Amino acid sequence: MASATALIALDWGTSSLRAYRLGANGAVLDKRALPWGIMNLPVVEASATGAKAGFDQAFEEACGDWLRDAPGVPVMAAGMVGSAQGWREAAYLDVPLRVADIGAGLTAVPTRNGAVLHIVPGLIERGELPNVMRGEETQVAGALEDGAAGELLIGLPGTHSKWVRIDGERFSHFDTFMTGEAYAALSGHTILGRTMERGAPFDAAAFERGARVALGHAGINGVLSTIFSTRTLGLTGALDGAAQADYLSGLLIGHEIAALRTGRAAAGLIATPRIVLIGDGRLCERYKDALALYGYTNVAIAAQATERGLWRIALQAGLVRAD
Amino acid sequence: MASATALIALDWGTSSLRAYRLGANGAVLDKRALPWGIMNLPVVEASATGAKAGFDQAFEEACGDWLRDAPGVPVMAAGMVGSAQGWREAAYLDVPLRVADIGAGLTAVPTRNGAVLHIVPGLIERGELPNVMRGEETQVAGALEDGAAGELLIGLPGTHSKWVRIDGERFSHFDTFMTGEAYAALSGHTILGRTMERGAPFDAAAFERGARVALGHAGINGVLSTIFSTRTLGLTGALDGAAQADYLSGLLIGHEIAALRTGRAAAGLIATPRIVLIGDGRLCERYKDALALYGYTNVAIAAQATERGLWRIALQAGLVRAD
Repeated sequence: MASATALIALDWGTSSLRAYRLGANGAVLDKRALPWGIMNLPVVEASATGAKAGFDQAFEEACGDWLRDAPGVPVMAAGMVGSAQGWREAAYLDVPLRVADIGAGLTAVPTRNGAVLHIVPGLIERGELPNVMRGEETQVAGALEDGAAGELLIGLPGTHSKWVRIDGERFSHFDTFMTGEAYAALSGHTILGRTMERGAPFDAAAFERGARVALGHAGINGVLSTIFSTRTLGLTGALDGAAQADYLSGLLIGHEIAALRTGRAAAGLIATPRIVLIGDGRLCERYKDALALYGYTNVAIAAQATERGLWRIALQAGLVRAD
Repeated sequence: MASATALIALDWGTSSLRAYRLGANGAVLDKRALPWGIMNLPVVEASATGAKAGFDQAFEEACGDWLRDAPGVPVMAAGMVGSAQGWREAAYLDVPLRVADIGAGLTAVPTRNGAVLHIVPGLIERGELPNVMRGEETQVAGALEDGAAGELLIGLPGTHSKWVRIDGERFSHFDTFMTGEAYAALSGHTILGRTMERGAPFDAAAFERGARVALGHAGINGVLSTIFSTRTLGLTGALDGAAQADYLSGLLIGHEIAALRTGRAAAGLIATPRIVLIGDGRLCERYKDALALYGYTNVAIAAQATERGLWRIALQAGLVRAD
């Protein structure tokens, strides 16, 4: 039966919870979005016991009915639900790592309604400045094609942008840039926000102007310096208030891409990589435009990476099987 | 008479107003600090007319009695009081500029109590990313020795750090780094602040650890990336919560100095400059320590730069004379 549930897959982050009912070969049969991120769990009645009762309540709301309709169906989750502040800590796996090995690291959590939730581990790359991810490893797995060879660079723009280098079938390296959160903090809590006129439509020219700064000589002083131009270009009449937010956005994203390029050169990676972007569609388009300025033109945008990744990892773990 | 007032000098910024009564040769006879920055003026009674009445009221509180005791004594001010949001806009002077030429650009404002306030102009360096300062030009003037030759690099660390290149008797170039304000926004309004334990005593080792990041290979990804290590070093148990604020401070200041050094190299400035720092004493000590890591060891800290600078500019303008 084509509509039989094969897997319940949860994307459970800090601020939201998405639930997918997947059928044969991972086809999406149903999906839901709930506000129950791990920092925003439902308040449970006083009789519920245990510090983790909010997780059980959210889990029940996300997929209790699906589980009753398909008893014994496997359930998986990826994201911050596996962090120290989550339902159960799912220990990090170390990068470098074969993509196929993620499924061997799942953490099982018994739930109040009798199911077992399998939580995907995050990844860590140790070193002088360690890097971590939770949830993105699953999206990356979902964006990969089977049997792909060579280098692939996967970008996950957002609050904390991740850039993941895949070599053949391995995670070989990743970086984090706090671009989205820095943008919010700078535009919301520094003098730069004071002259920004909010709510203007996206100004592509201002975004590109900002994104070009780190390309040229003017970017040499780095982002702590160039951001001040958001204000001084306003003072000198060269940048309208309505254009300043998109200029700053372009400026930060340009510095991110410039640093990525510098880091690649320092690592001896000369060839222009194939790039796949995962994330919010409009943000991915901005990154695609900025990447083109820096010579990165082989850029695709992945769809349904999270649910595909959860399916792929469930296959690895033997929780489901391919038809 | 040694205690006769020769000049009333005001350091009038965004959030505070400092008043100095200066005698012969600029000796400080008296000084006051008031909270009446230009964004925090006293509320005046309804009968006071004009949008600028708050400035007159603050001016009266700062030095009205000094003026009555010494009628006709010249009065000067430097800082944001000369901005578009200030009492009267004092047009920017363009850099490059002879230090001796600042005094020719004063803007005179008649005050309610019959005095004339002379406002020092800010400086602007035009270009692809313009730079501006208001107030720092006066501090720089106050830190210079008469007849100095060669290059001097003057750093004014703070909310918006300025680095000013003096060649002989000229302002030849300056940069701005929003280091202090970025630190406040990142530690107060991003995930980095969540694990910081506040109120710990200064941790010099954590500060130095952060300041070294931009020196080495780990800094290559730039500040948008390295700041995330404040969190990940905490996650891996390598950095206590009590050390994270000073680590982040060192990290940002290190990136600032690294960018300054890169910019100097790109401009063909190879020689290690003499450096003078102006500002809060403890912050200047932090910068001095970080500068040493980057090979800048010829560093002095200036005292009384503001009041000396106001006196020097008053001399240039002919408002006072040297004895």
